[in-house]
Amino acid sequence: MPVFTPKQFVAETHPAEGTTEPHQTLWLSEAGGLTQFGAFIEVLQAGGRSALKHWHSDEDELVYVLAGEITLVEGTVETLLREGDAATFKAGVAVGHYLENRSGAPTRCLVVGTRAPVDRITYPDHDRVCLRDRSLPDDLWTDGAGRPADNPY
Amino acid sequence: MPVFTPKQFVAETHPAEGTTEPHQTLWLSEAGGLTQFGAFIEVLQAGGRSALKHWHSDEDELVYVLAGEITLVEGTVETLLREGDAATFKAGVAVGHYLENRSGAPTRCLVVGTRAPVDRITYPDHDRVCLRDRSLPDDLWTDGAGRPADNPY
Repeated sequence: MPVFTPKQFVAETHPAEGTTEPHQTLWLSEAGGLTQFGAFIEVLQAGGRSALKHWHSDEDELVYVLAGEITLVEGTVETLLREGDAATFKAGVAVGHYLENRSGAPTRCLVVGTRAPVDRITYPDHDRVCLRDRSLPDDLWTDGAGRPADNPY
Repeated sequence: MPVFTPKQFVAETHPAEGTTEPHQTLWLSEAGGLTQFGAFIEVLQAGGRSALKHWHSDEDELVYVLAGEITLVEGTVETLLREGDAATFKAGVAVGHYLENRSGAPTRCLVVGTRAPVDRITYPDHDRVCLRDRSLPDDLWTDGAGRPADNPY
């Protein structure tokens, strides 16, 4: 039965940069056993950020704002997204992005990303690259020059 | 600039079964040039249906209800989805589904589906199969026995 009410989404909480409130990821794709793309609702508390600035070599991404407001930082451009707005990030476009909740209330976004067999995630502000091969158990991290490096999270 | 407000989504309207009101598809993926998955908001008028009952051999699908209520018919099981509920359809699960708006008001759903290179879409109630190869310009339609047949839409 592939129907899920919000309580049945697969919930994770994790520390968020910029706030002491954890933010929450509610997985829809995991609830339904989908494998070709990931889909989740991200609940970002006031002051929180979604991720370090990054871009994907091989995975398209989409963000749709369900409730609240969120600031998208993409390269050096900042754009306020309101409920009903969307942003897309095409695989291979070498401009890093992240979302930051500068409002005073939690924001809910629906986020979708392809699950490519192999992906390279570049963190331009942190001198890090994540090499992901989904057939292997762990990601590999290097610096921008390709030397082994620690996970920046 | 990959940020889109609703007026910038790529809109299509098309006739819907069950109602004289057209229903509307607002493409997010097309607005942003994504190719790995399709993502759109489907606005189904009261009495309208999303599609003929079908299932995909090779494409995961997801529906998330943004506003209103919608009845999911999957095989012979009917489930009412409310705002915030989701349904998933894993590629290769041979149970047909469609959405029907039996409420008195329009319903808005966010729909996501992988774009696999090749897909086979089976319409169990209509004795039809759609063979899709995204490298070719047109879909091919057959009946369930593999004989050439007309498009059931």
